[in-house]
Amino acid sequence: MKIWFGGCAVLLAVATQVLSQRAPAAVSKDFIEELVLANHILANEDVVDGYGHVSVRSPSNPNHYFLARAGAPALVTAAAITEYDLESNPVTDTSVTGYTERFIHGEIYKARPDVMAVVHCHCPEVIPFANTSVPLQPMHHMGSFIGGGVPIFEIRNAGGETDMLIRTPVLGRALAQTLGDKSAVLMRGHGAAIVASSLHVVVARAYYLNLNARLQLQAIQLGGKVTYLDSEESKKSASDYERSWDSWKSKVTTK
Amino acid sequence: MKIWFGGCAVLLAVATQVLSQRAPAAVSKDFIEELVLANHILANEDVVDGYGHVSVRSPSNPNHYFLARAGAPALVTAAAITEYDLESNPVTDTSVTGYTERFIHGEIYKARPDVMAVVHCHCPEVIPFANTSVPLQPMHHMGSFIGGGVPIFEIRNAGGETDMLIRTPVLGRALAQTLGDKSAVLMRGHGAAIVASSLHVVVARAYYLNLNARLQLQAIQLGGKVTYLDSEESKKSASDYERSWDSWKSKVTTK
Amino acid sequence: MKIWFGGCAVLLAVATQVLSQRAPAAVSKDFIEELVLANHILANEDVVDGYGHVSVRSPSNPNHYFLARAGAPALVTAAAITEYDLESNPVTDTSVTGYTERFIHGEIYKARPDVMAVVHCHCPEVIPFANTSVPLQPMHHMGSFIGGGVPIFEIRNAGGETDMLIRTPVLGRALAQTLGDKSAVLMRGHGAAIVASSLHVVVARAYYLNLNARLQLQAIQLGGKVTYLDSEESKKSASDYERSWDSWKSKVTTK
Amino acid sequence: MKIWFGGCAVLLAVATQVLSQRAPAAVSKDFIEELVLANHILANEDVVDGYGHVSVRSPSNPNHYFLARAGAPALVTAAAITEYDLESNPVTDTSVTGYTERFIHGEIYKARPDVMAVVHCHCPEVIPFANTSVPLQPMHHMGSFIGGGVPIFEIRNAGGETDMLIRTPVLGRALAQTLGDKSAVLMRGHGAAIVASSLHVVVARAYYLNLNARLQLQAIQLGGKVTYLDSEESKKSASDYERSWDSWKSKVTTK
Repeated sequence: MKIWFGGCAVLLAVATQVLSQRAPAAVSKDFIEELVLANHILANEDVVDGYGHVSVRSPSNPNHYFLARAGAPALVTAAAITEYDLESNPVTDTSVTGYTERFIHGEIYKARPDVMAVVHCHCPEVIPFANTSVPLQPMHHMGSFIGGGVPIFEIRNAGGETDMLIRTPVLGRALAQTLGDKSAVLMRGHGAAIVASSLHVVVARAYYLNLNARLQLQAIQLGGKVTYLDSEESKKSASDYERSWDSWKSKVTTK
Repeated sequence: MKIWFGGCAVLLAVATQVLSQRAPAAVSKDFIEELVLANHILANEDVVDGYGHVSVRSPSNPNHYFLARAGAPALVTAAAITEYDLESNPVTDTSVTGYTERFIHGEIYKARPDVMAVVHCHCPEVIPFANTSVPLQPMHHMGSFIGGGVPIFEIRNAGGETDMLIRTPVLGRALAQTLGDKSAVLMRGHGAAIVASSLHVVVARAYYLNLNARLQLQAIQLGGKVTYLDSEESKKSASDYERSWDSWKSKVTTK
Repeated sequence: MKIWFGGCAVLLAVATQVLSQRAPAAVSKDFIEELVLANHILANEDVVDGYGHVSVRSPSNPNHYFLARAGAPALVTAAAITEYDLESNPVTDTSVTGYTERFIHGEIYKARPDVMAVVHCHCPEVIPFANTSVPLQPMHHMGSFIGGGVPIFEIRNAGGETDMLIRTPVLGRALAQTLGDKSAVLMRGHGAAIVASSLHVVVARAYYLNLNARLQLQAIQLGGKVTYLDSEESKKSASDYERSWDSWKSKVTTK
Repeated sequence: MKIWFGGCAVLLAVATQVLSQRAPAAVSKDFIEELVLANHILANEDVVDGYGHVSVRSPSNPNHYFLARAGAPALVTAAAITEYDLESNPVTDTSVTGYTERFIHGEIYKARPDVMAVVHCHCPEVIPFANTSVPLQPMHHMGSFIGGGVPIFEIRNAGGETDMLIRTPVLGRALAQTLGDKSAVLMRGHGAAIVASSLHVVVARAYYLNLNARLQLQAIQLGGKVTYLDSEESKKSASDYERSWDSWKSKVTTK
């Protein structure tokens, strides 16, 4: 029985693979432009610098995702947006030089069917928390997604002595495993990966993860007892950041 | 006797209500433009981000106030400015989607006849103080209004486990009650509400509340004894911020 | 003898006064433009906000100085530059609304013949030091003028309970006395006054006083022993900041 | 034998000197433009202010290097780029007013044949570390070059009581000696010197040295144990910063 089911699973996986690689998904120009915009916003708000990336799952094919080819987020254009399968291979143009760490995206999309968008960043306020044992906690409702917990990925456990990069599917899977069902995972000596059910929300979560880290450090420095959002408050708070998106968008488009 | 007076009070309240809702106040274009400008200044000076709002009481009808409809402060236009009664219902166009938290404004205007303008913000330097027991104190004369004390609103006392938002008149009233006769109230896990007798002063108070929080944290970090403005100094100091307004205005209008 | 000398001194003072008030000094357009530029630089580099001012002693009459009339530094124009005598009365147009605190300038020029330019600012990084007992010390050669010591002015000693402002010649004299022969004096609960032998240097000192305060706080926070410039190093270091001036100037003129 | 070899060495040195001074190296316009760009990037990213400089070794003559004449980095033009020999004398136009501290460059190029580019800066986040005993350590892979150790240069050991400047070849040599085979050296009470095998990498190292200092301070302030990149990770990590360069370049060229 076990073998039979196993065989089915393999067949299914193969079929999905074939299906998923047959043709690029037809996505609208607006869909691509939104992803370009997300890149520009993250750079303009100092969540990413020359490095870092943001992807979105294909709306028409859950086994594909879209991500710029290797390049600085601030300079990403529509022409750079590339469609990948979940093995993080480009679907059409196999000559594309992709981000070395695109496995962060592919492996998270595999492990988390609910995730529709992923950001990887070296968000500067967050790195101090990635390197210490002091846990990130939600300072205000805009950072409520932190309330579920933000685990830290120790790459030495998964890959021993490395150059810190998620260069392989194996490392990507280990990262996805540490992420678990959370909204973000910190990467020791590196940065963070943030996930959400939409592109707008993942950009906002990356922004507010970074802001929350700064606010929490300030609160700790005051020297008194810090009260964070409690578990119930975290669950009930902010799930929509549309006004922030509008505001960030206007800043990059009127430049 | 008590009943008679009570009846009078009810009649008076009803009359006021009727009067106040009969017609929108005729306010000048300049009045509206100033409120738009206040929105842009608060965004440009990083007192608000995509969220937060500023209102002003109607100059011709103390039972009405003006506030933008729901939207990012940086993008507010004259067309978005809406007139509300003190129940926070729009006076003319009832189809308006208002800020969820407009009750902050309505309930404060009800409780504080001296207040002519209100800001609600997630001012980032202030939030650490909202989440700890270390009281904000006036660092310099520009923050002298802090000298009267800045209470902290604990929403769990008024509403139990919430999404942190002032979604109802009841929560608005509880917030106004915590504010009391002060110039500002911090909101735990959320931000602050600031009041003043004019639009220019409320914008300046929101700005200097935020700046004062940063200066106070820095002073605490130095590790020595910190001397704040004393009670007399606080009462005597800065009540006018016109030069700051001029300066902030020039930054948003020459962009 | 004492009386005779005293009489001479009075006569001399009167003569000087008469001479100094006879006519406004003829200063070049460039001289005025430099002072306007100094205002704009200080605002652009966040040393002053809507408040604060910068003056320069008249090159042709040591008993006069030039200062903008009351207004935000960023908005100062050549037309606003006003000539004052050392009593801080305008020399020609007596209808001018001057800065309330112009006595900071007049009294320092009286007490310090070597001083040719004065800045008063609410420089934000400096205020925490003005309110604590931790002394400012020179972190690097650009802040070497701090090495001579930066005293703190406690206005309660001179004026009791005030609105913190230097509203009178008496308070101005007390401030000048605390300044002594130093390059700067911190004002508790208020800001600082900085002096130098030229306009360019006073602007630079105000800037680097502010920067040095930030660097010193950071060094203290590291938790180890901090080594400051020693007394000899302070005396020998930076007395020229022309390249900073060029750089700051290009930022405000190409805006 | 010793004398003979010594004589040879002297002859060789003389020959090299003659050769190296015979004619300026022919370098491309692009090469010069890149150095101008490096100046503008460092200023725009706040690694240098009005002071600080960046040089690159001549690609055609290892005994020459290129550096702007004295001036603010933000204002450097191609016409200001000057060719120097390793004694830090200008090769052609001997009337050039060079940076007082050009010996930092000349002496490092002499001591370190592997170094192709040098930055000297008063990078603000770094100075606190230059003045304390807390060692800089690599917070993330972008600062991996810090893992080899960043020594501190105490100018009093080399020159006694000075104005902190590297005014002589002797001081330059002492600095180069403290640098040793590392990527950067902090200068107590002054700033830092950073080296690399290319212009792009030296600019990035200066930027990330500054950023790393800020992140490390923040991590220390959190109060928990901080985990830095270990020795192996540091050796394996980031040696390429091209995307940062692209991003910084776009910011200064589209201004």
